[in-house]
Amino acid sequence: MRTIDLIEKKKRGGELTADELTFLICGYTAGEIPDYQMSAFAMAVWFNSMTPAETAALTDAMAKSGDMVDLSRFGDLSVDKHSTGGVGDKTTLIVAPLAASLGCKVAKMSGRGLGHTGGTVDKLESIPGYRTVLSPEKFMAQVEKIGVAVIGQSGNLAPADKKLYALRDVTATVDCVPLIASSIMSKKLAAGSHSIVLDVKIGSGAFMKTKEDASRLAREMVDIGVACGRKITAVLTDMDIPLGHNIGNSLEVTEAMEVLRGGGPADLREVSLALASEMVSLTWQISPEEARRRAEAALADGSAFAKAKEWIAAQGGDTSVIEDPARFPAAPVAYEVKADCEGFIARMDTEAIGTAAMLLGAGRATKEDNIDPAAGIRLVKKTGDAVKKGDVLAVLYTADRAKIPGAEAKFASALTVTTDAPLTRALVEEIIRG
Amino acid sequence: MRTIDLIEKKKRGGELTADELTFLICGYTAGEIPDYQMSAFAMAVWFNSMTPAETAALTDAMAKSGDMVDLSRFGDLSVDKHSTGGVGDKTTLIVAPLAASLGCKVAKMSGRGLGHTGGTVDKLESIPGYRTVLSPEKFMAQVEKIGVAVIGQSGNLAPADKKLYALRDVTATVDCVPLIASSIMSKKLAAGSHSIVLDVKIGSGAFMKTKEDASRLAREMVDIGVACGRKITAVLTDMDIPLGHNIGNSLEVTEAMEVLRGGGPADLREVSLALASEMVSLTWQISPEEARRRAEAALADGSAFAKAKEWIAAQGGDTSVIEDPARFPAAPVAYEVKADCEGFIARMDTEAIGTAAMLLGAGRATKEDNIDPAAGIRLVKKTGDAVKKGDVLAVLYTADRAKIPGAEAKFASALTVTTDAPLTRALVEEIIRG
Repeated sequence: MRTIDLIEKKKRGGELTADELTFLICGYTAGEIPDYQMSAFAMAVWFNSMTPAETAALTDAMAKSGDMVDLSRFGDLSVDKHSTGGVGDKTTLIVAPLAASLGCKVAKMSGRGLGHTGGTVDKLESIPGYRTVLSPEKFMAQVEKIGVAVIGQSGNLAPADKKLYALRDVTATVDCVPLIASSIMSKKLAAGSHSIVLDVKIGSGAFMKTKEDASRLAREMVDIGVACGRKITAVLTDMDIPLGHNIGNSLEVTEAMEVLRGGGPADLREVSLALASEMVSLTWQISPEEARRRAEAALADGSAFAKAKEWIAAQGGDTSVIEDPARFPAAPVAYEVKADCEGFIARMDTEAIGTAAMLLGAGRATKEDNIDPAAGIRLVKKTGDAVKKGDVLAVLYTADRAKIPGAEAKFASALTVTTDAPLTRALVEEIIRG
Repeated sequence: MRTIDLIEKKKRGGELTADELTFLICGYTAGEIPDYQMSAFAMAVWFNSMTPAETAALTDAMAKSGDMVDLSRFGDLSVDKHSTGGVGDKTTLIVAPLAASLGCKVAKMSGRGLGHTGGTVDKLESIPGYRTVLSPEKFMAQVEKIGVAVIGQSGNLAPADKKLYALRDVTATVDCVPLIASSIMSKKLAAGSHSIVLDVKIGSGAFMKTKEDASRLAREMVDIGVACGRKITAVLTDMDIPLGHNIGNSLEVTEAMEVLRGGGPADLREVSLALASEMVSLTWQISPEEARRRAEAALADGSAFAKAKEWIAAQGGDTSVIEDPARFPAAPVAYEVKADCEGFIARMDTEAIGTAAMLLGAGRATKEDNIDPAAGIRLVKKTGDAVKKGDVLAVLYTADRAKIPGAEAKFASALTVTTDAPLTRALVEEIIRG
């Protein structure tokens, strides 16, 4: 088999076999196929796309390019959730203990954030003492015992994807749905859970800006999961407005705990319940409606919150901040952004709001940046809200007053105020079941 | 300017500016733009093509990426000829002295052959003593004095093309007309001649198998030449049958000299006259008909042959073999291939015949192979000829009898014999003038 022949075949619109795609991925991972051939191949895929069979085979090969986490001891009970990333998206902090409180086994590895989307690991590290690194044995034992563990990505999961993604990033081949789908799914397959729930975000704060694109990506990922023998559901949710009110690490932990106690912002509660219901439904093979009833009950009766405390304590976290978020170290600077006109907030450029939070210290512009756990934004007004001149729109939190002007300008640029109230969008736009 | 943005622009079907293409080519030549970005760009060009303005700008940038030969001392009289390559194509050996005998200045750098097409330099080296390397000063002085010099490619001509071609060769991006056109023309522009005549071959022995493809390539090259201020004509000629009867280095020199003496095979004479007429027509700004009359006269009155001897002697070649080809060292083995059936030769797979000659030692399979100057094939019968069982079809020449069976099998596989005489094709299919 020669790489050039496979590039030629894809260029001419042919369908590659599983063996051919495995040859490409194994050769690329081993360094036998050079970047310049792989980038030409990726560009040919950009133009000619891939069939569902090709996408599944590529994903399978990438998943198997490194370690495969073995969760077979949990039988059919292991379940994972993945979000395509958004601003203020703290649903993992909610659905992991919520699903665990209903008997699911959530052995979750999460990433750090880069750019405007924060990472779950960064959020958890804002809890004093929380350990995001556990040995494989301790990780498994904790899931066995309490049903949930969330650590940083460790081991050598899907190295082919890591290498290919870095290449696509510099060759203008990122925006290709089958390649995006296979990138995400290769890591999910390698992470080992039997069931997978995907939260595919749509809107100004998401990678996929339109429903059409998000729906296509979700469908491709669900198809891959099914082809690779997993139970899988994709939930398409709105990211045209930040989720909840809080953006920033300890701010988001605080808000997640509010939902786990049965309160919290309605949008965050709704998206979390939708995701947890699908997780529970897949795991126990019950209807989503029945799963939803159980999830709502777990929030109402305190069992979800109790599970969260058990989980955080097991990983060394200080649960006193969970009980009383006022104990979180406060940001030295809290600055109120006020409205300079009257009307309705018609639109929030959610990516720009994420960038404003990053500028305050809540995220990283480069891999080397340190995160300030207390920095971030609390949104007082969101899309659809009426505002009067002088109303507080948001509070900016930071350790460094010099960061306020840039962040405020960025935040202000993200808001569109009009005289008419905007139409509201559905929070959960579509559910695609495998 | 960022490379990724230029890849993205081409991917989206945009038209790159001359500045953008120059940035790409300069950066790539300097090693600042990596192969993996350039191959992704080339694949995007394969899919979205380039406008004439883009192709001209790319070619100009590649031509200027290294040395530019300065032939300005010859005013408007310098003229070059380029063939896209074929089997038995020895026209350079004819048209260079022929055009020089009519006052043109032919300062020609030629390549070596690889694969089934032999190189002019290899053919000239079959003449004992002929030097294919001259200092730039001697090269210029010879052209000044006698009007013609033919040496191997020297200096650092169009290094960007060399690098890009090597990359395209391993990334399935060779078969792209604007990239082929810019590759050929960048070298021709750098080689400095004021006028350029292109011999674009069509058929089973050529890179372009169809008239349509050849015509498109010719048109693109002519457009580039015009855009870059050169006088240029493309002649589309048949390569569905080997040109002349002889294939192999000293065999081809012998046949070229026959044409220069006013004899030789009709097809070789006709194509040579067509090319030389266009060279003379461009150089002296006279009609192709008038140029043709002069060229025919130069063959008839011996001035072309005299110029050939003067040229070869000037470069140290033994002109006694030119006067009497029987003095060329003979191949130890001469093997007659005979017909095993009766009918008409309806088709010759010319590329396969070239490969048979290569197997006998006349060409190189790899860059490291040595060429046997006496090896090759003399075709006794060609397409359209009637054959009877036992007729000699061709004579195979080689130094090594062990090479005969493989070469004979390859040769035999190249012939199609039918009961009806085939239609004949035009030798010169089209002329495209800039």
